[in-house]
Amino acid sequence: MLEKLEGEKVLITGGLGFIGSNIADTLHKFGAHVTILDSIMSLYGGNYYNIKDIQNQVTLELGDARDYLVVERLVKDMDYIIHLAAQVSYIDSRHMPVEDMDINCRSILCILEACRRVNPEAIIGFSSSRMVYGKIQKIPTDEEHPTNPLSLYGIHKLTCERYLKYYHQEFGIKSVSFRISNPYGPRQQMKHSKYSIVGWFIRMAMEGQEIQVFGDGKQKRDYVYIHDLVNGFLSGLVHEKIECEIFNLGSGVGTSFIEMIETIIEAVGSGSVKKVPWPENYERLETGDYISDQSKIKSLFQWSSSVNLKEGIQKTYEFYRKNRSFYW
Amino acid sequence: MLEKLEGEKVLITGGLGFIGSNIADTLHKFGAHVTILDSIMSLYGGNYYNIKDIQNQVTLELGDARDYLVVERLVKDMDYIIHLAAQVSYIDSRHMPVEDMDINCRSILCILEACRRVNPEAIIGFSSSRMVYGKIQKIPTDEEHPTNPLSLYGIHKLTCERYLKYYHQEFGIKSVSFRISNPYGPRQQMKHSKYSIVGWFIRMAMEGQEIQVFGDGKQKRDYVYIHDLVNGFLSGLVHEKIECEIFNLGSGVGTSFIEMIETIIEAVGSGSVKKVPWPENYERLETGDYISDQSKIKSLFQWSSSVNLKEGIQKTYEFYRKNRSFYW
Repeated sequence: MLEKLEGEKVLITGGLGFIGSNIADTLHKFGAHVTILDSIMSLYGGNYYNIKDIQNQVTLELGDARDYLVVERLVKDMDYIIHLAAQVSYIDSRHMPVEDMDINCRSILCILEACRRVNPEAIIGFSSSRMVYGKIQKIPTDEEHPTNPLSLYGIHKLTCERYLKYYHQEFGIKSVSFRISNPYGPRQQMKHSKYSIVGWFIRMAMEGQEIQVFGDGKQKRDYVYIHDLVNGFLSGLVHEKIECEIFNLGSGVGTSFIEMIETIIEAVGSGSVKKVPWPENYERLETGDYISDQSKIKSLFQWSSSVNLKEGIQKTYEFYRKNRSFYW
Repeated sequence: MLEKLEGEKVLITGGLGFIGSNIADTLHKFGAHVTILDSIMSLYGGNYYNIKDIQNQVTLELGDARDYLVVERLVKDMDYIIHLAAQVSYIDSRHMPVEDMDINCRSILCILEACRRVNPEAIIGFSSSRMVYGKIQKIPTDEEHPTNPLSLYGIHKLTCERYLKYYHQEFGIKSVSFRISNPYGPRQQMKHSKYSIVGWFIRMAMEGQEIQVFGDGKQKRDYVYIHDLVNGFLSGLVHEKIECEIFNLGSGVGTSFIEMIETIIEAVGSGSVKKVPWPENYERLETGDYISDQSKIKSLFQWSSSVNLKEGIQKTYEFYRKNRSFYW
C-alpha cells in the first residue's frame, strides 16, 4: 500500500525526532518528497544525526510549528502532513502546563487553520497517545474506552483529537490519529528518563547501572517497536477510506516492567535490577496495566506489529552500541 | 448561605462584564472585598458603567488573565477566584481558533498554576457552558450527558473543566464549574448579535426592527435570568461540600425561539418577527432543543431559578430603556 507514496509531498513536523526521522526514512524509500519542520527544542529528541542517511534528499526547515506563517507556507503544497512536533512527556506537562498547552494545542490548530485556508485537500496524520484513556478499566483497551486523562499531556492530546474531529465536521479536512502505546527503538533521545523508558533502561544497562523498578514490577505495558509503528502510521495515512479516524497503535502484547528490564539486561549483557517502593507522585499517575486492543487497525489495514520485544530490544541496543556518541 | 461571604476576599476575572459585574454587586452587598481583573477587550462586554454603583468600593485592576505574573500577584491573598474572563462566542471561535484557545485555556491554567504555587486554599468558580454537550440526545439534559462539543468554544470549555479536575486530583485545588445555559439580563453587551441573543432581540425590538427567526422558530432554549444565575453561582461557590463539581446552571424551563421573541415584542411594545430559512453554517452548529436538568444543583443547594422569562425580559427592557446610551 505504501507504494502510493511515490511522488507525494509530505511535511513532517518534528521530523528530526525519533518517530519523525524513522517515518522520513520510510517515506523516502517509497519515493515521497519529504519536508521536515523542526525547532530542535533542547529538551526533546530532535537530532541532526537522525537524518544523516537522507539529509541531501529531504528539505529541512528550522522553525516552530506554533508559528502560523511558517506553517501556512509549508502546508500549501503538501499531500500529507504528519504532525509529530510536540511536548512529549506527560511528566513534564505537570511542571510546564502552559507550555504543554501551547506546544501541543497551538501547533495543531495552526496546521488545521492553514489546511482550511490554503490546502483543504491535505491529509493529516497525528500522534495521539494512549495517555488519553487515563485509569484503565478494561484490557486490552479499545478505542471506545472512556477517556479520562490523568495528566495535562493526556488532556491536551484529547483536545487535539477533538480539533481534528471538529475540522472534519466543519471543513471536511481528513485526518488519522494514532493513540500510540509505548514506542521504543533506534533514535529515541537518551539524555534523560522522562520519556522513552525502554531507551533509558538500555542506556543504564549499557553503563552497568542498577535499574530501579517500582513496586513488584508486574505492571504491564504495550511496547511497540518503531518500525512497526512507522508501518502502521503510514498504512493508516494513505488508506483510501480515511475520513477522520482514531486508531490504537501498539503491539497488542502486554509485557511486565520486570520482564522488559530482564530482556534489556540479557540483550546488553550488563546492568542489574532492583525493586523499590513507588514514589508518591508516580503512583497517582499510574494508569494500571495497559495493553492496546489492535482489532480496529488490524481489520481496516490488515496491519499488525511483527517485531517482538526481544528482537526489538536487540536491534535498539545494537544501534546505540554503534552510535552512542550521537545520543548520550 | 451567602452571609458566609462577609469579609471574604474575592477576585473576579472579567468582572466588568455582564455576569462578572452582577456577581460583584451581590458580593459587595454581602460584605465581600471584591477585586476585579478585566482587560476590556473591545469585542466583549467589559464596560465601566457596569460597576458604577460600586466603583469606589471595589478594587479594579486592568490587565490580562493570560499574564501569569498579574494573576499570581492577585491570586495570592484571595479566598475565592471567580473566573469569567473569556472569549464568549462559540461563533467567533470558528474564526479565531488560536485566540479562543489562548484566551479560554491559557487564562485558567495561569489561575490554577498561581493557586498551586501561592494559594492552594482558594476556591475557584468557573463559567463553563452548555455548549460542552454538543448535539443534545436527551432533554432535559443532565450533567452525565455525553460531551461532544460542536464548536472550538465548547471544546475549550471542556478542556478547562478537565484542567479543574486534574488540579483537584493532583493538588487538591477546589473548584465549582457551571454549565450555564442561555443567560440574559441587564448589562449584557448590546453591540452585536454574536452572543446574548435575548439582549440583541430586545435592542432590535426597541429600534422597531424586524427580528428574523430561523426555521419554524420551535427550537427550545433554556433562558436564565442574570440574578438567578448569580445566586446559583455564588451558592455553589460557598457551599461547604464542594471539592470539584460541575453543575448545570439554567432555568430548567424550555422556551421556543418564537415564544421568546413574542415575549420581547410584547414587553417592548415595538418590533416584529419574520421566519426565514436556516443559513448553512448555523444549521450545522445547531445543537437541537436544550433544557437544562437542574436536579443536581437543586438537590445540593436547594437553589432554583425564580424569575420567569416574561418578568426577566421586562426587567431587562426597563434597564436598557434607562441606560441605552451606555450599551448601544
